[in-house]
Amino acid sequence: MVAPATILLSPTSAQVYGQYSNVRTLTEKLCQPLEIEDYGIQSMADVSPPKWHLAHTTWFFETFILMSYLPGYQVFHPQFGYLFNSYYEAMGERHPRAERGLLSRPTVAEVYAYRAHVDQAMAQLLDQADCQQWQKLEPLIILGIHHEQQHQELLLMDIKHIFATNPLRPIYHDQITTSQQQAPEQQWLDYPEGIYQLGEHTSEFSFDNERPRHRIFLEPYRLASRLVTNAEYLAFMRAGGYHTPEYWLAEGWFVAQQASWHAPLYWEQDGHNWQVMTLAGMQPLHLDQPVCHISYYEADAYARWAEKRLPTEAEWEAAFTLMPLTGNLLESGRLHPAVAQGAGLTQGFGDVWEWTQSAYTAYPGYRPDPGALGEYNGKFMCNQFVLRGGSCVTSASHLRPSYRNFFPPAARWQFSGLRLADTGS
Amino acid sequence: MVAPATILLSPTSAQVYGQYSNVRTLTEKLCQPLEIEDYGIQSMADVSPPKWHLAHTTWFFETFILMSYLPGYQVFHPQFGYLFNSYYEAMGERHPRAERGLLSRPTVAEVYAYRAHVDQAMAQLLDQADCQQWQKLEPLIILGIHHEQQHQELLLMDIKHIFATNPLRPIYHDQITTSQQQAPEQQWLDYPEGIYQLGEHTSEFSFDNERPRHRIFLEPYRLASRLVTNAEYLAFMRAGGYHTPEYWLAEGWFVAQQASWHAPLYWEQDGHNWQVMTLAGMQPLHLDQPVCHISYYEADAYARWAEKRLPTEAEWEAAFTLMPLTGNLLESGRLHPAVAQGAGLTQGFGDVWEWTQSAYTAYPGYRPDPGALGEYNGKFMCNQFVLRGGSCVTSASHLRPSYRNFFPPAARWQFSGLRLADTGS
Amino acid sequence: MVAPATILLSPTSAQVYGQYSNVRTLTEKLCQPLEIEDYGIQSMADVSPPKWHLAHTTWFFETFILMSYLPGYQVFHPQFGYLFNSYYEAMGERHPRAERGLLSRPTVAEVYAYRAHVDQAMAQLLDQADCQQWQKLEPLIILGIHHEQQHQELLLMDIKHIFATNPLRPIYHDQITTSQQQAPEQQWLDYPEGIYQLGEHTSEFSFDNERPRHRIFLEPYRLASRLVTNAEYLAFMRAGGYHTPEYWLAEGWFVAQQASWHAPLYWEQDGHNWQVMTLAGMQPLHLDQPVCHISYYEADAYARWAEKRLPTEAEWEAAFTLMPLTGNLLESGRLHPAVAQGAGLTQGFGDVWEWTQSAYTAYPGYRPDPGALGEYNGKFMCNQFVLRGGSCVTSASHLRPSYRNFFPPAARWQFSGLRLADTGS
Amino acid sequence: MVAPATILLSPTSAQVYGQYSNVRTLTEKLCQPLEIEDYGIQSMADVSPPKWHLAHTTWFFETFILMSYLPGYQVFHPQFGYLFNSYYEAMGERHPRAERGLLSRPTVAEVYAYRAHVDQAMAQLLDQADCQQWQKLEPLIILGIHHEQQHQELLLMDIKHIFATNPLRPIYHDQITTSQQQAPEQQWLDYPEGIYQLGEHTSEFSFDNERPRHRIFLEPYRLASRLVTNAEYLAFMRAGGYHTPEYWLAEGWFVAQQASWHAPLYWEQDGHNWQVMTLAGMQPLHLDQPVCHISYYEADAYARWAEKRLPTEAEWEAAFTLMPLTGNLLESGRLHPAVAQGAGLTQGFGDVWEWTQSAYTAYPGYRPDPGALGEYNGKFMCNQFVLRGGSCVTSASHLRPSYRNFFPPAARWQFSGLRLADTGS
Repeated sequence: MVAPATILLSPTSAQVYGQYSNVRTLTEKLCQPLEIEDYGIQSMADVSPPKWHLAHTTWFFETFILMSYLPGYQVFHPQFGYLFNSYYEAMGERHPRAERGLLSRPTVAEVYAYRAHVDQAMAQLLDQADCQQWQKLEPLIILGIHHEQQHQELLLMDIKHIFATNPLRPIYHDQITTSQQQAPEQQWLDYPEGIYQLGEHTSEFSFDNERPRHRIFLEPYRLASRLVTNAEYLAFMRAGGYHTPEYWLAEGWFVAQQASWHAPLYWEQDGHNWQVMTLAGMQPLHLDQPVCHISYYEADAYARWAEKRLPTEAEWEAAFTLMPLTGNLLESGRLHPAVAQGAGLTQGFGDVWEWTQSAYTAYPGYRPDPGALGEYNGKFMCNQFVLRGGSCVTSASHLRPSYRNFFPPAARWQFSGLRLADTGS
Repeated sequence: MVAPATILLSPTSAQVYGQYSNVRTLTEKLCQPLEIEDYGIQSMADVSPPKWHLAHTTWFFETFILMSYLPGYQVFHPQFGYLFNSYYEAMGERHPRAERGLLSRPTVAEVYAYRAHVDQAMAQLLDQADCQQWQKLEPLIILGIHHEQQHQELLLMDIKHIFATNPLRPIYHDQITTSQQQAPEQQWLDYPEGIYQLGEHTSEFSFDNERPRHRIFLEPYRLASRLVTNAEYLAFMRAGGYHTPEYWLAEGWFVAQQASWHAPLYWEQDGHNWQVMTLAGMQPLHLDQPVCHISYYEADAYARWAEKRLPTEAEWEAAFTLMPLTGNLLESGRLHPAVAQGAGLTQGFGDVWEWTQSAYTAYPGYRPDPGALGEYNGKFMCNQFVLRGGSCVTSASHLRPSYRNFFPPAARWQFSGLRLADTGS
Repeated sequence: MVAPATILLSPTSAQVYGQYSNVRTLTEKLCQPLEIEDYGIQSMADVSPPKWHLAHTTWFFETFILMSYLPGYQVFHPQFGYLFNSYYEAMGERHPRAERGLLSRPTVAEVYAYRAHVDQAMAQLLDQADCQQWQKLEPLIILGIHHEQQHQELLLMDIKHIFATNPLRPIYHDQITTSQQQAPEQQWLDYPEGIYQLGEHTSEFSFDNERPRHRIFLEPYRLASRLVTNAEYLAFMRAGGYHTPEYWLAEGWFVAQQASWHAPLYWEQDGHNWQVMTLAGMQPLHLDQPVCHISYYEADAYARWAEKRLPTEAEWEAAFTLMPLTGNLLESGRLHPAVAQGAGLTQGFGDVWEWTQSAYTAYPGYRPDPGALGEYNGKFMCNQFVLRGGSCVTSASHLRPSYRNFFPPAARWQFSGLRLADTGS
Repeated sequence: MVAPATILLSPTSAQVYGQYSNVRTLTEKLCQPLEIEDYGIQSMADVSPPKWHLAHTTWFFETFILMSYLPGYQVFHPQFGYLFNSYYEAMGERHPRAERGLLSRPTVAEVYAYRAHVDQAMAQLLDQADCQQWQKLEPLIILGIHHEQQHQELLLMDIKHIFATNPLRPIYHDQITTSQQQAPEQQWLDYPEGIYQLGEHTSEFSFDNERPRHRIFLEPYRLASRLVTNAEYLAFMRAGGYHTPEYWLAEGWFVAQQASWHAPLYWEQDGHNWQVMTLAGMQPLHLDQPVCHISYYEADAYARWAEKRLPTEAEWEAAFTLMPLTGNLLESGRLHPAVAQGAGLTQGFGDVWEWTQSAYTAYPGYRPDPGALGEYNGKFMCNQFVLRGGSCVTSASHLRPSYRNFFPPAARWQFSGLRLADTGS
């Protein structure tokens, strides 16, 4: 949460409610292609059923805002706090994460009723809040909005996984994801040594883990102009990438052997060709699109094979901090990475989250937000790596150059790929 | 399958179709109280989603009858053979059993359409079958009917487990399951030593595992007149039954410790009282009803504590083979065990399946049915125990005195209880 | 324990002490080929380190005899009761079974000192026991002797497993195990229907699970004249035995796939030939020797492939009860199965334990021995199968026709094979 | 490996052989208190049996030096390459790590013979090496020496774990580890912001992961003058540290619950007092000694409870880089952390390894050593945290201010503790 510098700069209550309303509506719109049966599936422990996302984001507003700030608010159901708390220890016992797919009740209709109940109460709260209350409420509501945007991305990741798990390979939307475009040659862009500033510093919203802004020293470095493509990744595969332990971290090699990884997630070999599962169903692999759905281990092994390395998150942010925040994001409706276009540094925002070699840890001087919301980010600073830049399922309004996404190194169901880096001169 | 002694005794095609039709209709009727969301849940590996039962029983008729005997029959969907084969290795690869709950598609509506498609084809087949075909078809259809009746029982067991897993404890039906009745005192009934006949021998239907009829010698024995009640089982619990390894099989003690068993499945302590989950929702424990949802280990431990033993399946069958097949069965609509009534040997049929101390094994001279259907029973003759007598969720028309049900000793989600036995004189 | 019919028939104290002394000496002699390092290894959870067997058998005499009957007896070490209790819940907490190989202390020398301490006390006890005491002591001592004989067999099984686990494949003894002998053709021997007596009935020693003697009815049956040979088992393997689920119990097929079984335990393919690990090190497979180190699942699959079945334990005992107890037993010093010789029913005793299709369960009227020793057999009557006839590592003086050995169906490290049975006429 | 700047500065061959010989002798001296039985135990997967350490360090010299550089060298045993390769994929297949405790052979005597064989060949090689060969050999030998020193520390860690696992709690040495000393009050020492140099830069030996020397920017910070004591850690425990999820990383909380952690490793409650297992056996907890055998999760939770944080490795190195390398190290023979003494920044070297909040990752410009030895460090740069400063079981000659030790966050069997850090001003 950010405390606005002065109340004058603050968006009015109506503007915030507009944002709230748009984001809440978008979540439901993203679920429109689903059958009732799809809402309940948890295809692996990391995945949550779509119904759970719909309810949990609602619980967030109910718990952290309505229950504290709307006098006389009645919770929709006394057990929803147990069912839809994700990981907030301060909020008490929770339904086990791995058992979210075992709950046929509440029904989908009841969850939508829960959303309507909370939306109505939120409207009432915003309508009656005075200026003093507003100072407390605004940052919480904006956090709740960003929280729901994170779950919009998870929703699409999870639906893709749910559909890919089903031998019938259902189709979420019928967008054509292929094109005849070709990716430009990869160029190297040089960045000089120096003291850089890292982290968020404006009065705009940011998560606590992006703060405080602080200084770091970077040795000279170089970044690739675009993301690694499927064609390039196939070359790694054909060079024996998945059979050569020298390219791999010891732990990555172990995981890859255990799980029999031979290609990125969602790739399926069909004779001599590769097909990939997309939100538009099974599609032929497009060679010029960025490689997607790879783990940190695979990104790192690819880089080692290419005799390069992954960038650090500081290198990434220093390069992209002043670039315009445009790209193949959720708004394009494509929901699939696109071929790079243009010269210079491209594909920084959208397409795929870029693995960095930076472990997810606290910035110097980091303090978690106070109270239960301090559990939002800080307690995950262990055994995860930072990814930067957003993906084709990230909202533009949710992203910033300082945005730190993070996943364990074995995770592959997020839209993740890589950009190469190298030591500069 | 049984080859009818003479065609004259055989039911006519119309009679068989009547049975077929009744059973198929009953399956769907049992699902009427479900929400669409309920159809997809697999609350543990042993449970199958209701949708899967609906489809699998249909696949059975499609695969073993229509595809072989109805010329020009078109399978409803080319992948349903993969999705809805349960365990027939001879029929090829199958969807992994533990992942039945991960399939949102086919939808519930599609599964009902599958049922209608197969029912229509079955009607057509029976309509056009000549006398020669009928001799082959009849035993297969009757097997399919009994197969579907087994799944009706599984359906109710699984719905109970699915609902009990949900913290909201949904209600399947609103039948009142409690009463003020008292169980009569337990009496001992004596049976003399001798050579008895075991197994099925009439021209009526029986499973291959009930055959051939053969001779066994029994030493003199005694059976309790009724099932063990909740009150009696509570006495065992209060005597430290769950904390005294001396009463337990070594393996049972290990399982009970690992799983933290302190009471039968579905019992929940509420202060000093016990509540039990039923198909009518949470209910106070009725002390005079038979104890239900116990494992073999618990039944055996109870018997050891009581200084008695479980009957063998031969002892059970010898005692009940000439008793009238009446009791608290599925037709009562109660779906819960009832208090014993009357004198003499009671509660043999219905209420709860009775654990016997007999391992599930082949009768002398046993031969599995030929072909893929030989996998129906024979390949499970290992590490399972026989239960006898049916339960409150078993159809009367599905049961016989020679009927051998079987479960692994740790299973508790079936409606299982016990009757004591002792050495006679 | 058996209560001797009359005291007149009882062996004198000196005779019993002679037996005691012989058995105790033999245990240590069996360990002579071991290096100190070999004494501590637990190569899988089922295996116990040789040092543990030496100590546990000693603990048995200390705990069940000396501590109760020798006034002023001082236990050798206060923690040995914790370390060397196997599974007697009544005797208190125990060191976890799977962690027996983690104990470097007590050292081997200390364990031998423990044995000497107990042997001396036992000599003292027997020396001073009067006639009345003797009536109590004798059955306990004889049980302890048989207990130690069981552990002699386990010792050799475990040493074989320990050595086979080591890539250096150490040699236990240099006995030549191969020969040029050929097995005679398998014949079928017929046994008539009738009421037979099963179980032990003499005043000689027997375990509680062999009692009481009781009547059973057998339908007519046939037994093969000799054990199944390696050549015959290879034919099953070459016919795709390990790749054809139709031959297997469902659970056996699952286990075989999980564990990648493609041959009996200890078989290793060397180009086109098979080598087997023996107590004399790696040896070429002898085709005419009985197949050994197979699980129940494999024995059952073989029998199904051969269109025969395994015998029941009653069928086995009825056939062998009056045969002379001779064969390739521990006394031969061979420690490996030998080629069948002669006509008629052969190889009943020694060579390999014969899997029966009988689940290990209580005989009618069975009562466990009283007190802690009641845990000896009864609590394992679940998910195990009976094996009959002893093996090449069983002492002749330990065996009887009524002897019931038992193992879970997946166990293969015991010297186990099979004899075919069939329905008679 | 480091290429010495000029050959003139290089130690002579005799000096290096002196170091080699001293280190090899010390390894064997550290094993003197062991019984033969102790050499073979692997008390958890992370632990290696002492025998394995003796052989593996020998294999290192045989494989990377003798086989390449000593003409006509005969390997001691053809299978030792398989048995004693730790994790070098480039050197081929290996015995599974978790099964090192299952090998009774080679015997301890054979392993000592292996050491003597390799030592003799090393002496021969050094004797005959000319100046040109020496340039290649010297860095390999020095690496081998440091490698063996690392295993000396592992040997003591592992012996402690092996002895602590044994209910008899054996004693390794009889050094008195307690004293009446009191720890001084903790002071805060301030360090200014600025660009610092990190990593090794002299011609002395360093591991590849300490290089290259590079610049980093540090914001102002503070370090505690001494390590956290047992008394301070007990205060955390008494404040509910092990029961309050707010202090813990999410993953740490999960691990602590799963493993039922309620105190550091080796602490045992004895009524109201605490005992700790040491290499001198069970001892009363000394309140003023540094807390030891805690995981990263516990160190981090303690720091959060204390409203401070762990230092980064850069902060640690910047503070200690010019301090004299003295402290309670292996040479003291104490083998247990000691009470802090004196003013200013103390306990930097020796006592316990200090957890830093820095994930173990590559320095900018890092290149692994070429060939198989490139697997030494680089492939572990994932899901581990850096520890600094050595411990009471680290050799002084093995340590440097730039030395980076690393362990996964759940590891506790190393001698690890913590020093608090804070943001400066």
